[in-house]
Amino acid sequence: MEIDLVIRNGRLVTPQGVFNADVAVCGDKIAMLGENLSGKQEVDASGLLVLPGGVDPHVHLEMPAGDIRTSEDWASGTLAAACGGTTTVIDFVEPEEGQSLLDALEARRHEAEGNAAVDFGLHMTLTNVQENTLRAVKDVIQCGVPSFKLYTTYEGFALDDADLLQALDGIQQAGGMALVHSENDGMVRWSLDKLAQEGQLGIADYPYSRPALAEVEAVQRMIELARLTETPLYIVHVSTAGGAAAIARARNRGQRVYGETCPQYLMLDASRYNAEDALEAAGYVCAPPLRTTSDQDALWHALGAETLDTVGTDHCAFTLKGQKDRGLTDFRLVPGGLPGIESRMALLYAFGVKTGKISLAQWVSLCCENPARIYGMFPRKGCLMPGADADIVLFDPNRKVELSSEFLHEQVDYSPYSGLQIQGWPVSVFLRGKRIVDNSEPEGCSPGGCFMVRALRAS
Amino acid sequence: MEIDLVIRNGRLVTPQGVFNADVAVCGDKIAMLGENLSGKQEVDASGLLVLPGGVDPHVHLEMPAGDIRTSEDWASGTLAAACGGTTTVIDFVEPEEGQSLLDALEARRHEAEGNAAVDFGLHMTLTNVQENTLRAVKDVIQCGVPSFKLYTTYEGFALDDADLLQALDGIQQAGGMALVHSENDGMVRWSLDKLAQEGQLGIADYPYSRPALAEVEAVQRMIELARLTETPLYIVHVSTAGGAAAIARARNRGQRVYGETCPQYLMLDASRYNAEDALEAAGYVCAPPLRTTSDQDALWHALGAETLDTVGTDHCAFTLKGQKDRGLTDFRLVPGGLPGIESRMALLYAFGVKTGKISLAQWVSLCCENPARIYGMFPRKGCLMPGADADIVLFDPNRKVELSSEFLHEQVDYSPYSGLQIQGWPVSVFLRGKRIVDNSEPEGCSPGGCFMVRALRAS
Amino acid sequence: MEIDLVIRNGRLVTPQGVFNADVAVCGDKIAMLGENLSGKQEVDASGLLVLPGGVDPHVHLEMPAGDIRTSEDWASGTLAAACGGTTTVIDFVEPEEGQSLLDALEARRHEAEGNAAVDFGLHMTLTNVQENTLRAVKDVIQCGVPSFKLYTTYEGFALDDADLLQALDGIQQAGGMALVHSENDGMVRWSLDKLAQEGQLGIADYPYSRPALAEVEAVQRMIELARLTETPLYIVHVSTAGGAAAIARARNRGQRVYGETCPQYLMLDASRYNAEDALEAAGYVCAPPLRTTSDQDALWHALGAETLDTVGTDHCAFTLKGQKDRGLTDFRLVPGGLPGIESRMALLYAFGVKTGKISLAQWVSLCCENPARIYGMFPRKGCLMPGADADIVLFDPNRKVELSSEFLHEQVDYSPYSGLQIQGWPVSVFLRGKRIVDNSEPEGCSPGGCFMVRALRAS
Amino acid sequence: MEIDLVIRNGRLVTPQGVFNADVAVCGDKIAMLGENLSGKQEVDASGLLVLPGGVDPHVHLEMPAGDIRTSEDWASGTLAAACGGTTTVIDFVEPEEGQSLLDALEARRHEAEGNAAVDFGLHMTLTNVQENTLRAVKDVIQCGVPSFKLYTTYEGFALDDADLLQALDGIQQAGGMALVHSENDGMVRWSLDKLAQEGQLGIADYPYSRPALAEVEAVQRMIELARLTETPLYIVHVSTAGGAAAIARARNRGQRVYGETCPQYLMLDASRYNAEDALEAAGYVCAPPLRTTSDQDALWHALGAETLDTVGTDHCAFTLKGQKDRGLTDFRLVPGGLPGIESRMALLYAFGVKTGKISLAQWVSLCCENPARIYGMFPRKGCLMPGADADIVLFDPNRKVELSSEFLHEQVDYSPYSGLQIQGWPVSVFLRGKRIVDNSEPEGCSPGGCFMVRALRAS
Repeated sequence: MEIDLVIRNGRLVTPQGVFNADVAVCGDKIAMLGENLSGKQEVDASGLLVLPGGVDPHVHLEMPAGDIRTSEDWASGTLAAACGGTTTVIDFVEPEEGQSLLDALEARRHEAEGNAAVDFGLHMTLTNVQENTLRAVKDVIQCGVPSFKLYTTYEGFALDDADLLQALDGIQQAGGMALVHSENDGMVRWSLDKLAQEGQLGIADYPYSRPALAEVEAVQRMIELARLTETPLYIVHVSTAGGAAAIARARNRGQRVYGETCPQYLMLDASRYNAEDALEAAGYVCAPPLRTTSDQDALWHALGAETLDTVGTDHCAFTLKGQKDRGLTDFRLVPGGLPGIESRMALLYAFGVKTGKISLAQWVSLCCENPARIYGMFPRKGCLMPGADADIVLFDPNRKVELSSEFLHEQVDYSPYSGLQIQGWPVSVFLRGKRIVDNSEPEGCSPGGCFMVRALRAS
Repeated sequence: MEIDLVIRNGRLVTPQGVFNADVAVCGDKIAMLGENLSGKQEVDASGLLVLPGGVDPHVHLEMPAGDIRTSEDWASGTLAAACGGTTTVIDFVEPEEGQSLLDALEARRHEAEGNAAVDFGLHMTLTNVQENTLRAVKDVIQCGVPSFKLYTTYEGFALDDADLLQALDGIQQAGGMALVHSENDGMVRWSLDKLAQEGQLGIADYPYSRPALAEVEAVQRMIELARLTETPLYIVHVSTAGGAAAIARARNRGQRVYGETCPQYLMLDASRYNAEDALEAAGYVCAPPLRTTSDQDALWHALGAETLDTVGTDHCAFTLKGQKDRGLTDFRLVPGGLPGIESRMALLYAFGVKTGKISLAQWVSLCCENPARIYGMFPRKGCLMPGADADIVLFDPNRKVELSSEFLHEQVDYSPYSGLQIQGWPVSVFLRGKRIVDNSEPEGCSPGGCFMVRALRAS
Repeated sequence: MEIDLVIRNGRLVTPQGVFNADVAVCGDKIAMLGENLSGKQEVDASGLLVLPGGVDPHVHLEMPAGDIRTSEDWASGTLAAACGGTTTVIDFVEPEEGQSLLDALEARRHEAEGNAAVDFGLHMTLTNVQENTLRAVKDVIQCGVPSFKLYTTYEGFALDDADLLQALDGIQQAGGMALVHSENDGMVRWSLDKLAQEGQLGIADYPYSRPALAEVEAVQRMIELARLTETPLYIVHVSTAGGAAAIARARNRGQRVYGETCPQYLMLDASRYNAEDALEAAGYVCAPPLRTTSDQDALWHALGAETLDTVGTDHCAFTLKGQKDRGLTDFRLVPGGLPGIESRMALLYAFGVKTGKISLAQWVSLCCENPARIYGMFPRKGCLMPGADADIVLFDPNRKVELSSEFLHEQVDYSPYSGLQIQGWPVSVFLRGKRIVDNSEPEGCSPGGCFMVRALRAS
Repeated sequence: MEIDLVIRNGRLVTPQGVFNADVAVCGDKIAMLGENLSGKQEVDASGLLVLPGGVDPHVHLEMPAGDIRTSEDWASGTLAAACGGTTTVIDFVEPEEGQSLLDALEARRHEAEGNAAVDFGLHMTLTNVQENTLRAVKDVIQCGVPSFKLYTTYEGFALDDADLLQALDGIQQAGGMALVHSENDGMVRWSLDKLAQEGQLGIADYPYSRPALAEVEAVQRMIELARLTETPLYIVHVSTAGGAAAIARARNRGQRVYGETCPQYLMLDASRYNAEDALEAAGYVCAPPLRTTSDQDALWHALGAETLDTVGTDHCAFTLKGQKDRGLTDFRLVPGGLPGIESRMALLYAFGVKTGKISLAQWVSLCCENPARIYGMFPRKGCLMPGADADIVLFDPNRKVELSSEFLHEQVDYSPYSGLQIQGWPVSVFLRGKRIVDNSEPEGCSPGGCFMVRALRAS
C-alpha cells in the first residue's frame, strides 16, 4: 500500500481523547494512524491539533425567501465553510407547491453539484402529509436523505398536531428521523398580533414576538408526539434553558431525542436588538430570536453535560444593505437569519474549550462526530479512523484572529461576531485527501463537493 | 343572639386539624364554634365526624349528548349528592350555536332553580373566541360565573392554540379562571384512526384511542399557554402520573395552576375494559379513560403531597341499558361518562384516609375547602367557621355500607363501584341550617338549592 | 356559660385562611368563635389581625456558656417574647456531668417557674448514651418532655454516629422525637485548624470556620441515621440551601423530618462579619454562621413551598460589651448566639407576608401552629379554636416601628436588626385569657408562665 | 518501520464507536491502525471483536485476612485475569502497623513482580493520618501510586471524619485521588449489635448487618468531605440505587467523583443468602452485601446513563471448604469476598451489551478505557491507538461457555456464577504484543507482568 500523504507530529483530537499520532492517507481515505509514518507527501503538524473535518448539520445556502434569496450561494458558502474547518454541510430541500419530493431533491442536488466546495447532504422538508408525499418518504430515504424537516410555525410550512403525527408516523415507518423547528405557532401569532395592535414593531420589539415559552412548549410537544409514534427526533436550534431541559428529561427516560444549538444562542443575547443603530440591530434578527444570558449559561451547561448533541450554524445570510434594511421600522419585513458558517469551530474552541465549558473531546463530538453519527455519515465522516474519508483539519490553537466580514469568506456584508478577537483558527483543511485550505486561505479549492448518500443506524 | 341549632359533641374536621367543639347555627349561618353550646334544637354528634358540606366542582346533570341526555337530572343528581355529603355542586353552561353566553347562563340557571336540592354554581363553556363571546366574559363574571371551561379536543368544543390563547387572555383580563379538559386532539384522532383502520373498536380497545401521552402533552401545553397569558388554570380530571407531574413542576416554579382528579382515576384501572361482558365494560367508558395502577399510585401520592388540589366526580351518568349499550361493538357509539356524585366523600375516606394516603385534614381540603376556595365560594362554603353557610355533614366513620345502584340514590342503572364494602358514610346533612338528610336518607329535602354567585380572590 | 372576654371585629388569621369573627374567652380558654358575640369585657379589634399566640420552639434563656451566662434571663426573655407576640417558648435542659435527666429537668423547670412571663416547654439535651441515660428517656417523656436535643458538634455535646444511632433508637422506642444541631464536627475542626494555622482568626474569618458543607453533610447524615431507626427528626436552625434541599428530598419520599430556620438566616448574610467595627461584627457571631444571599433566597422559598416547617429564634443573647468583646481578635473567644426573641413575628410579617414570599396563613403556621403541633401542644396552643388556651395576639398591620435595642425589651445591649423600619407590630397580647401586653407595652404581665406538659401525636 | 504483528479483519470496539480496521504492532506497542496492513506475523480476526486489553481497577490477590489469606495468589489470579481478557489489574498495598508506606509499597511490588502474568498497578491504603504517613503521600505518588484507599468502616482501617478530611486534604495537595470503601461504620455496628443480641447470626441474616442506608449515607458523606477538600474521589463497589444517585447528583453539579460497581452487584441479589445450603450461601458473603433486584436495575441504568464509570471485580477469593465454612452458623466468621476476576468482561457483554443495557462502546469504556484513564494509565492502557501498549483482546461474540469453577482458571473451589450459560468469550489475548492466551487457554503466558507507574491528569 502506497501512502500518498502523511500528516506528521500532530495532536489528534477525538471524542475518545487526545493522542499523538501520524495520519496516513491513501487516495481519498485515511489509511492508517500510526507513529513515524511516511508517504509521498508529508505535512508537518507540529504544534497543531488534528481534527476530523467539521460537519455542519444545519445550513441554508442559496435559499429563496419570498422575493429575495440568501446572499450566500453554494459556491461562496461552502468555501467559507471550508475555511472554517467544515468539510461537510447539510442543507435543505424545500419542494415547491405541487413539486414531488424526488423532483425537488433532484433539482436541489443538481443546484449544488459542481458548485459546492465541500461535501454536502440534504434534509427533506415536509410541508404537507398528502398521501403521495408520505408515500415518497421511503424513496427519498433510499436516495440518501433519511432526515425530514418539519415546522410547527411559518405559514406554508407549519403542520398541526394531527399532521405532525402523520408525518412522524410515516417517517418512523420508513426508517427516517424528524428534525423540527419548534416554536408554538399560536403563541407566536398571538404575541405578534399584540405587538402589531400596540404599534410596537421596531427591531427592539422583535424578541417579544417569539417568546421563549413558544419554544419550550413546542419542544415539549414534539417530544410527546414523537414518543407516541416512536420516531427519532432532532430539535434544531435550541435557544432556551427550558427547551434544553425538556430534551434532557426525555433522554433521561430513554427516548431517542437529539438537540442542536447554534453559536449565536451561545454567544449573543437579546440586548443586541436594542442597538442604537436599527440596521445593526436588524443584523441579529433570526428565529428563534436571541435570548437571555441565563439561557446562554444553560445551553453551555447542556453542551458540557452532553444533553445537547450538536452545534449547527443555521447559517442563513442576508445582507444588511438591500435585504435586512427593508424592515428597520417593521421587524416583520426583516428577512430572518444570521451568517456563521465559517466561525463555528473557532468560536466553540475559544469560548467553550478555552474557558473549560467543554473538553477538547466534546468539541469534536459536537462539531464533527455527533452530526455525522446522528445523520448517518459515520464513520465515513466525523472521525479520524482508517477507512474514513480523509477530511482533516489542522487547527492552530495559538493563531490569533479578529473576526469581521473582511476577514471571513462569507458572502455577506456583516458578521454578528465582528470585533471579536479570538485565539485558535484552522490553518489547513483537507477534503478527501486533497488540500483545499492552506495557511487559512482557500488553496486548490474546487467545486468538487459530493452529495452524501446518508443512511441511519438502528439506534 | 338566639341559637337555632347546636351540633354537639362532634369531632370537627378542618384543614387545620381535628377539634372537639360544638357548632351553633343561627338561621342559615354558622354562628359559633364553642364548647357546651346550647340552642333551640340540639343534635348529638357523639362519635361522629363533623365536616363542612362537600363541594363537588365538576358535575354534569341533565346534559345533552347528541340525541340523548344524561339519565341524571338536576333533581335526582343533587339529591344523590346530598346523600353523599355534598351540599354544593358546580355544573356547566354549554351555549348552543348562536346563543349568547348570558342567555345560555340564564337558561341553564333557570333549569336548575326550583329543582336542585343542594346549592349549585355554574362554569361557562367557551367554544369559540368570536368578538362578542370574549366581550361577554366580563358580564358572565359579574353574574357570578368566573370560571370558564375550555376544551382541547371534541368536535364543536376544541379550540386550537391560537384560539386558546385568545380565550385565556380574555379570561385573564376579565379576572377569571380557565378550567381545561386537556387531551391532545391530534393524538386522539390519530390513535382512533389507527384503531378504526385495523377494525379494533371493541370496548377493550377503547383506552388505546385516548393514550396517556395525549393528556400529558395537553396538560404541559395548557400550562405553557396559561403561563404566557398569566391566566389562573385548573386542569380537570387529571388521570395520569405524567399530568400530575407536569402540574407539580409548574406549581413549584410559582405558577398558579390547580389540578383535579376524580374517584374513578384513583379507584379503577383500564383492566375494567377487558370485562368479559361488554355491557359491563361499557359502563367504564369515560374520557380520559381509566389508566394503569401505577397512574393510580401517582395520583394518590399527589393528593398526599398536595400537588393536586381537588377531587371532583365528573359525574356524567348514562344508563347501561338503552344508552351505554349502543356501542358494544363500536366504542365510538358509547356515550362517555361515569356516575359517582354520591360516593365521592366516602370513597376518599375509605381508600384515602383509612389507608393513610391522605390525612383527615387533607380529606376535607380536597373535597370541601379547596374547591370552594379555588372557585370563589370561600369562606361561605367549604369551612366550619362563624359566618359560613351552615352546610354541615355528620359522617359516621364506623358505618358500613355496600355500594350498589340500589343503595345509592343516583338515577342510573349501575355503579362503577358496585360490590365495594366500605366503612364510613354520611348520616346527616344540613344545607344552610336545614337538615336534608337524616339517617343517610333524604329527609326534608326540597328543591331549595340556590345559585351561587361566585367571585375569585386575587391569589 | 358566661363569657369573660370577647375580642370583637377582628380578622382572624389561621392556617385555614382569614376570617372575620369574634373570639369569646371563658376563663383561660377560647370558648367560642362567632359573630356578634358579647361578654363581660369586650375588646375592639377593628383593623387588627387576631392571631393565636406565637410559639417559639427554640430559645436559650439563662444559659451558661463557659464562665459566663446569657444576658437574658427567664424573666426578661419571656417578657420580651410576650411583647413580640410569643406566648409560649421552648427552652432546653442541659444536664450537668453526672446529673440525672430527671434531676436536671426538675432544676431547670424550677428555675423558670415563678419567673417566666409566658408559658414554656423544655427540650431535653442528651450528651451521652449511657445505659441510665437511655433508660431515663421514657420517664422524661412522661414528665412532658418528648423532644430530645442531640448535637453532632461541640465538645462535651457531640455524639458520634454509633452513639447517635443509640440515642435515636432509644428516643424512637420511647415515642419521642429528636431535634439536632447538624454540623459535621470533623469539617468544623478541620476548617478551624486551618484558619488557626494561618493566623486567620478575626471576626471576618469566622464564617470560614463553619462551612456550609458542614451543615449540608450533617443534615443529610442525620436524615439517613433517623431513617434507619425510624425516629421523627427535627433539624434546628437550617441555614443553607443544601440543608433545606436535603430535608425536602427526605419528606418527598415520606420520611418524617421537620425543618426549622431562624430570622437571622432569612434576614442577614455573611457580609456582616466584614463590618469595619469588629465589635459590631462580633454581634453576628452565631453557629451556624450567617450565609449567602442565595441561601437566604432558598430558605424563603422553602418556607413558601412548605418544605421547612417552623421559624424559631435560637435566641441566645450575649452583650457586645463585656461578653462578645472578649474575642475581637480571636473569634474563638466570642460567645456565639444572636438575640431575636421579640421581633420574630413582626420580621416574618414585614419581610415574608408583605413581600408575598409567604401567605398570612403560612405566617401563623410557621410561627404558631406548626411549632405547637410538631412539639405536642396542639390544639391547646397555636390555634384559635374552642377549647384552646386563650393565647391571643392583636397585631396591627399598620403600626410602624424602628427596631433598636432601646425599642425592644430584650435584655441585651444591641439588636442585629437595629435600624430596620418595619410596618406591623403586636399591640395586645393575651395569655390564657389574661392581657399581658397592651398598646405594645407590658401591662399586667406577671411571672405566671406555666410549664407545658407536652405529648407527641402518632404522625 | 517493520511491523511485527498485524491483527487483520477484526471489528475494533472503542468508546468512539465500532470500526473495521487492522491493528499493527511493532515491538510492544500498537504502531498503526489501518486497512490492508501486513506484517511478519498476521492473525486473522474475522468475525471477532478486537478490544483493548481489560483493566480491572479493583482486585485483591494474595491478601491476608486475619490468620488466613485469599486462595488466589499473584500468579494464579493474573493468569485467570488474562484468560478473561484483562491485561492490567490494580491491587492494593496495605502497610502493616509501623511499616512505612514506601517500604510496604516496595514489598508488595516485589511480591508481584516475577509472578504476575499481566501488568499491575497498586493503590496505597491509608489507615492513619500520622504526620509521617501524610508526609509520605507525595513520595508514594512519585513512585507511580497516585491513588489512595480509605475506609469508613472496619476496625484498623476506618478513619473518622476529621481524619478522613486530613487524609483527603493531604492527598489533594499531593495531587492524588482517593478511593473509598463507603459504609457508615456506626450503622454497621448498630445493626450488627442488634442482630447479635437477637442471636440472628446465620448467613441469611448477613445482609441486615450492613444495610443499604449505610452505603447511601457514607457515599453522600464522602462526597461532601471531598467537596470541601476538593479531592478527586472514586467510590468503590457501589451496590445501591441510593449510592449511585448520590454520585450522579454530585457529578451533575460538576464535582469530580467517579463510581465503580462490580459484576456481583449487577448480577446477583440478596436472595442468595437464603440458599438452603449454608455453605452455598456463605459463598456470597461480601461487603457491601448483595442487594435487591431494584438496586440491580438502578446500577445497570447508571452504567447506561454513564453516571457510574467503571466495573471492577473486587476479586477476593476464599474457598468454600476450609475458609468460608468457618462461619456457617455465625456470619461474622465468614471471610468476606467473591471471586470474579476472569468473567468480568464476558458477563458485561452477555448481560449488558446483548440485552441492550449498554452499548459496545460503553462496554469497553467501563471495562478498559475508563479505569485506565481515571487511574492514570491512559493512553498507554485501555485503548487501541498508535503508541498504546499492544494489549489486545480478540473476543468471539458467538462462543458459548458455561461458567463453573472447573471452566474458570481462578484458584478457588466455586464460582458465584456457576451454571450460567453465556455467549461471548475472549479467545486470544495479547500483552504488550505477546500472545498470552490462545483459543481461550493460557499459551505462552509468563510471569512477565510489569508494575505500572501511574500518573493522574489534571482533570
